[in-house]
Parts: sequence; C-alpha cells; structure tokens
Amino acid sequence: MLIVGELINASRKSIAEAIEKEDAAAIQKVAADQHENGADYIDVNAGVFVVKEVEYLKWQDSTVQAVVDAPCSIDSPDPKAIDAALQLHKGTAMINSISLEKERYESLMPLVAGTDLKVVALCMSDEGMPETVDDRMKIADKLVNGLLQNNVAVENIYVDPLVQPVATNKEFGIEFLKAIEKIVTTFEGIHTLCGLSNISFGLPERKFLNQTFMVMAIARGLDGAIVNPLDKKMMANIIAAEALMGKDEYCANYLTAYREKKFEF
Amino acid sequence: MLIVGELINASRKSIAEAIEKEDAAAIQKVAADQHENGADYIDVNAGVFVVKEVEYLKWQDSTVQAVVDAPCSIDSPDPKAIDAALQLHKGTAMINSISLEKERYESLMPLVAGTDLKVVALCMSDEGMPETVDDRMKIADKLVNGLLQNNVAVENIYVDPLVQPVATNKEFGIEFLKAIEKIVTTFEGIHTLCGLSNISFGLPERKFLNQTFMVMAIARGLDGAIVNPLDKKMMANIIAAEALMGKDEYCANYLTAYREKKFEF
Repeated sequence: MLIVGELINASRKSIAEAIEKEDAAAIQKVAADQHENGADYIDVNAGVFVVKEVEYLKWQDSTVQAVVDAPCSIDSPDPKAIDAALQLHKGTAMINSISLEKERYESLMPLVAGTDLKVVALCMSDEGMPETVDDRMKIADKLVNGLLQNNVAVENIYVDPLVQPVATNKEFGIEFLKAIEKIVTTFEGIHTLCGLSNISFGLPERKFLNQTFMVMAIARGLDGAIVNPLDKKMMANIIAAEALMGKDEYCANYLTAYREKKFEF
Repeated sequence: MLIVGELINASRKSIAEAIEKEDAAAIQKVAADQHENGADYIDVNAGVFVVKEVEYLKWQDSTVQAVVDAPCSIDSPDPKAIDAALQLHKGTAMINSISLEKERYESLMPLVAGTDLKVVALCMSDEGMPETVDDRMKIADKLVNGLLQNNVAVENIYVDPLVQPVATNKEFGIEFLKAIEKIVTTFEGIHTLCGLSNISFGLPERKFLNQTFMVMAIARGLDGAIVNPLDKKMMANIIAAEALMGKDEYCANYLTAYREKKFEF
C-alpha cells in the first residue's frame, strides 16, 4: 500500500498559519511525523492561497525536502504551480493530479510526458463528476491511454476514481468500489489511489465510516491512499486489510505493528 | 444482512453447563439477548456431547423457541440430530449444514428436498478442505445444482465457502473473498453466509482482524454471517459496511444505530 500523507494542506488552519509565518520548523515536524508513521510521499497543497499559491507551494516543497527523505506529492489543480514546484524538487515526485478537464490535461501532459514521475489520474472531466462505473471507466480509458501514449509507464499511473458521498446517493459507494476493481483488472500493472473522506459527508461517525470504506476499497483492489498517517485506527485498518489480502508475507508487517503497539488505540 | 446468532453453542463452557443442568432460563436469556441485538436466526449446537447430542439439540431447540420469535439454525454435522430437532421446530428453520461429504449429503438431501427450509451449503467434500477459488467453485457447483434439482429454491441456499486461516497461507483470505464474489455472480439470487473467526487463527488481535475481514467479505458480496450479535464493534462494522454497499436506503439503519449509541464502544 502506497501511503501519501495528507496533512500539509493549507486548507488546515495550523498549516496555513505556519505558511504565512514562514514557520519552517512547524511544517517540518508534520512532514517528519508523517514519514515516521508510514508515509511514502508527503502531499503539499497551498491551493487556498489563490494569488500566492505558486510561491507557497514552492516553499512547502523545499521546506519538506530539507528534512524528510521521501518525495513530495505536488498537489494543485494549477499546472503552473506544479511546474514551479517540480523545478526545485529532488528525486521523483508524484503529481496530484492530471484529469480529463481540457485545460488541466493539455498543460500537464507535456510536464509528465516521458518522465518517471508518479502521476495521479483523477476521473474528472469538463462534463463534471462521474457517478457510475461507466462514467469513471470512460474517463479512465482516455486518461490512461493518453498517459501511455505520452510514455508514462503504466506502473507510474495512479487512477483516482473520485469518491462521492453515500448520503447523497446510496449507489455512490458501490459504484466507486466496482470502478476500483474494473480499473485494476482492465489495465494490468496500474495502481489506484484516492482520498476517501468524502464518502462519509453528511453522516455521523465519519472517521469510523472512512475506515470501513478504506477496508472495502482495499478488498476490491485499492493499493494507494491519501490519508493521515498519524491516525492510528486508520493505519491499523490498512495494515490488517493488507495482511488479509495476502499482501503481507508471513503477516510480518502485521506482527511488527502489533509488537509496536499500533493496535492499541 | 442475515445475522445468525452463534452463542448457543455447547463448545462454550457456560452453555455446556446450562445444558447439563437443564437451566432453561440461562439459555433463554442468551437467545433473547441475541434476538434483541439483531439476530434473525438463533444457532443451536450441541456437537460436543457426542452421545447425548440428539437429546440436547432437541432441548436447545425447544427451549429457545419457547421464548424467542425467531427460527433456529439447527447446527450439526449429524443428519439424525438435525432430523430430530426439525421434528419439533415451529416455523422455517435453517439447516447448518449440508456439504458434499457423501454420507452427510445423502442423508440430509431427503430432509431438505422440496421444503422451504433455509439450507447452508458448506464447501467441504470428502477430498478435504478447499483452498482455492476453483476448489470452492467445484464443490459449490455440485452442491447448489444438487439442491436446485431437489427443489430447494435458490434464494433459500446460503453457500459457506469455508474460511481458512491467513496465517497458514497468505492466499487463504483473498481466495475466500474471490470465491464469495464468484458464487454471487455465478448463481443469481443465491446467498452466502459464514462464520469467519477462523481467518485470524494464530494471529494476535483476533477480534480486530475478524471485524476487518467481515467488512472485506461484505465488500465482495457476503450477505449473511454467523456472529455474536452482542459484539457491538462487529455489529457496527456490519451496519456501516451495509450502508456503504448501498443496501441501506437513506442510510436509515445506520442513522438509527447511531442514535441508539451502537457506535459507542
């Protein structure tokens, strides 16, 4: 399971404040904590600062990389911001995300073409948010084939089928789960990745629902997640589900987590 | 989700003692508690009493039925014991279970043929325990077709693919999950049901693993479980997973459970 730590996002008040004060130590602590608790990539997002996004995203990126030996997931809908942050990134970043929205697609594709970058391919188009498996597969087909034609290796593509709230439509959960399974069986060697807290929007006990849905998505083939690695319950669910999926030889990772008391909440 | 309450099993010390003392009140309390907490069927099992099994199973059955308005799941490998308990059962019982083991198959089939009984079809044969999806499907094909030919309606068949411990072989979890999906897509209208605590045999934090595996099985299509309905965490996981599968209109059952504080552990 590929874990992308989600905490360095300026939509969170403490992060926005640290950015505005240029408090590098605060950002670096969050980065280091996430890495120590299992994050393979550190997501950086400054999207709430519309005018200063480019400047702040670059600062986040270099501030994180100064202390953490893990690459960043450069998270922005704006290709210019991604390009700027990429210029100073060391190692192989993840781009979060390309989509089928025309402007985003056309300006991001040249940036990722022929590179080793990890690319999140978000199932969104100018026609709006997908609802069904078919909606998602139509977008995924075009996105994945576009990336492959532009010499992005299949194993560097992480399709995000886009989670929608089950309280809005009771089919939104199962359609997402079916899409995960269809994507991983259609494109051999591809990965899937998502943030899934939207699933519980409008319902009580959101953390519990998010954990449950994470386990269900793993059961259908999900192999990447944008989560809070400091959330012990969520991480325990992921570790247990991976062992039960046969992805943990001799249950070694599960047993280590148990000995390190990661199942004590 | 069809819930079969598992607690009235003589392999549990308190139940064995109550049976030997003919303490009907003790058994009836366990039956009533399970029913109030969501059990659709009350499993009765006296298998540890080899000589007295028939007598005790009949006693369990009538003792439970005297107080609880839910049918029993008559649980024995011995067709004679099942037959005896069936004679005095009111309403439509569940038979747990027929299998492809020759003796069991041949003596149970006449009992269930042409009836409305719910029948658990356990994926076991004289060749031993199944390990792969194919092992399970070979047995399921013969069992289900045998039951259909004997005029058991498909919607009364509950296939139990038989859980094996993931600590023994890391593929045992995923092979089971794939079997669930294959069974429900192969036989339209059929049900699946299992007890799944075997999955965690030999590993620490078994309850947590069992809950996680339950959610994964539901994500693949499981719609029946033999569980402890008094286990609040397990029941909460089932309720949440059902809502996320789109099986809970307007999330009404989930919201009721929340209001009744079923998510407070």
